[in-house]
Amino acid sequence: MTSLSYEAAGVDYGVIDPLKIAAQEAAKSTAGNLTRHGFRELEESRGESAYVVDTGSLLIASITECLGTKILITDEVYRATGKSHYAAIAQDTLAMAINDLVTVGATPVSAHAYWAAGGNEWFADARRANDLVQGWKAACDYCGVAWGGGETPNLSGVVVDGRIDLAASCVGIVASRERLTLGKNLAIGDAIVLLGSSGIHSNGVSLARTLAASLPGGYATPIEDGRTFGEALLDPTVLYSTVTEAIFKAGILPKYSANVTGHGWRKLMRHAGDFSYDIHSIPPVPAVLKFICSAGKLDVREAYSTLNMGAGFAIFTAPEDAPRVVAIAESLGVTALEAGRVEAGPKRLRIKPLDIEFAGSELTVRA
Amino acid sequence: MTSLSYEAAGVDYGVIDPLKIAAQEAAKSTAGNLTRHGFRELEESRGESAYVVDTGSLLIASITECLGTKILITDEVYRATGKSHYAAIAQDTLAMAINDLVTVGATPVSAHAYWAAGGNEWFADARRANDLVQGWKAACDYCGVAWGGGETPNLSGVVVDGRIDLAASCVGIVASRERLTLGKNLAIGDAIVLLGSSGIHSNGVSLARTLAASLPGGYATPIEDGRTFGEALLDPTVLYSTVTEAIFKAGILPKYSANVTGHGWRKLMRHAGDFSYDIHSIPPVPAVLKFICSAGKLDVREAYSTLNMGAGFAIFTAPEDAPRVVAIAESLGVTALEAGRVEAGPKRLRIKPLDIEFAGSELTVRA
Repeated sequence: MTSLSYEAAGVDYGVIDPLKIAAQEAAKSTAGNLTRHGFRELEESRGESAYVVDTGSLLIASITECLGTKILITDEVYRATGKSHYAAIAQDTLAMAINDLVTVGATPVSAHAYWAAGGNEWFADARRANDLVQGWKAACDYCGVAWGGGETPNLSGVVVDGRIDLAASCVGIVASRERLTLGKNLAIGDAIVLLGSSGIHSNGVSLARTLAASLPGGYATPIEDGRTFGEALLDPTVLYSTVTEAIFKAGILPKYSANVTGHGWRKLMRHAGDFSYDIHSIPPVPAVLKFICSAGKLDVREAYSTLNMGAGFAIFTAPEDAPRVVAIAESLGVTALEAGRVEAGPKRLRIKPLDIEFAGSELTVRA
Repeated sequence: MTSLSYEAAGVDYGVIDPLKIAAQEAAKSTAGNLTRHGFRELEESRGESAYVVDTGSLLIASITECLGTKILITDEVYRATGKSHYAAIAQDTLAMAINDLVTVGATPVSAHAYWAAGGNEWFADARRANDLVQGWKAACDYCGVAWGGGETPNLSGVVVDGRIDLAASCVGIVASRERLTLGKNLAIGDAIVLLGSSGIHSNGVSLARTLAASLPGGYATPIEDGRTFGEALLDPTVLYSTVTEAIFKAGILPKYSANVTGHGWRKLMRHAGDFSYDIHSIPPVPAVLKFICSAGKLDVREAYSTLNMGAGFAIFTAPEDAPRVVAIAESLGVTALEAGRVEAGPKRLRIKPLDIEFAGSELTVRA
């Protein structure tokens, strides 16, 4: 087969972006509404991964995020093998919201579930429904989040029959102003610590699905760790809030954070400033991502520009704090690596061990 | 044609409820997680329409709500007439979250958009996309809400091709503890003020769609106000937060509130206690709801148990405050009516002018 590219796999950022930009501009124009309540927004949170409102006494962060199409893999593996991964997909969904929320320095506090089914029969399968509930609860408990409620509508005609659209919203508190990581503290010389991923997480899923469709064995194709491609894809996303909380409790204030999701490692250039990010060490690549790269004939540049390649979250920190950040993460069961350094611009990402480079223009996350 | 019932129109609460109950129980069990942050939940907000966390210095309310299937009507009218009602549907979506949020006494502060499309082409139609954006912004501005951000995923394979799944999350602040309306203040003798609806709002939509499918003229069928059935169905939901804010600013503390959505007027029995609700006056019925009742051959009991029948929101207040609540609402362009009184139990709703009665057991909103 020929090489798979992200656009060929159905994600065309070019078509979505004009709306996204119009929405961002309209959203920005509503900021003044907060003055009616005596509040203000932290303007620098616009364009970051969560929105922060300053009530005077408290900084409230909020976010709504969707799982994406990973549920289609969960459904297909369930259908083909009878094995339910609905607890895992609940964790994936919450991780999309929580891992974004913590990038601004917030402690996740409460979450709502959005589970929109294509018909009542989704909920009639008690086993998967119960797994979804228990997985959601377990992820909340792990992150110290109160599950506040949610919606379980039957959206027959909007959601595809037999499918479910999963999303999460999350509210957090930034415990102190000094804990805010909205960008202003990042500096040349800061260390880049990469926290390990468990696999594909929830990004690059279209690519994985296209690949599965092209394989004679589909999701049942064995990969090098002895499992099937489908099973391995369904390892749930790592929840990073335990690490960000523990770092703060240890007295470390990160300079910036980035959740490595869409755009793969290009997300390491997420900060608005003109810094250059030099990577000197790379984490091991999970077997499932290695398989996607080889079976999908992705070149290394394409792989790192799309997939997390073993790095699910980046913490930018003072160089003297980096070893402790790594140690704290590892003590919580999250692999971590001091991987690089923030240098003077121009904006670019250089992954030196692989001899690849991305220009700042290859990541557009702001209007 | 024979009479339409809600279950025949595709909403079967019996199938969804076991999952809902399991989710509510699991969610409840996560309350203790807040103690990790020094916070606590207001337990009495569970089962109410929004979740409230007490941080000590602030009461934070949050909610996630979905539009439902009203978008299918918007799409069909757009396809058939070329007239875009996507600004209106944005208001409907936000109203689902905001009108629920304010029932607990919260001031809505920020909102996130969740717009999940069945393919990139949804966003490629610049006109409807722009209407959606501008309608969302206008509703935020009207309610004094900051639009914090959102998600615009392409969920091809999960959301039906050509469709969009719309939802909103909202964060609010309860300005003072005395403003909380979680139920403990409601008392015998309190007045029931009903705020007017603009039409179907976003509930009873399955019924309306089933009816349209059975009519020779479909959505183009004229109704008594001279418009088509489709146009009239798309009048956007009234946003009630301007009224709830103005009431508070006037020094009035309502005893309880109920957003009249699914289950129609049975929602007037939403309070957990054993009160009897006696209605002595009913508001005018919007033309579109009159048409549904007559063309769908709904009997009056079925109509009031399913549709809002002209009452979109209920404010329970001390009898001496009721006239001012009515006047404040009317001054803001929201029709209002002192419609009834809270009496001693058993739990039931009596709509005296229509000689109909609902038992408390006919509404189940709590696990």
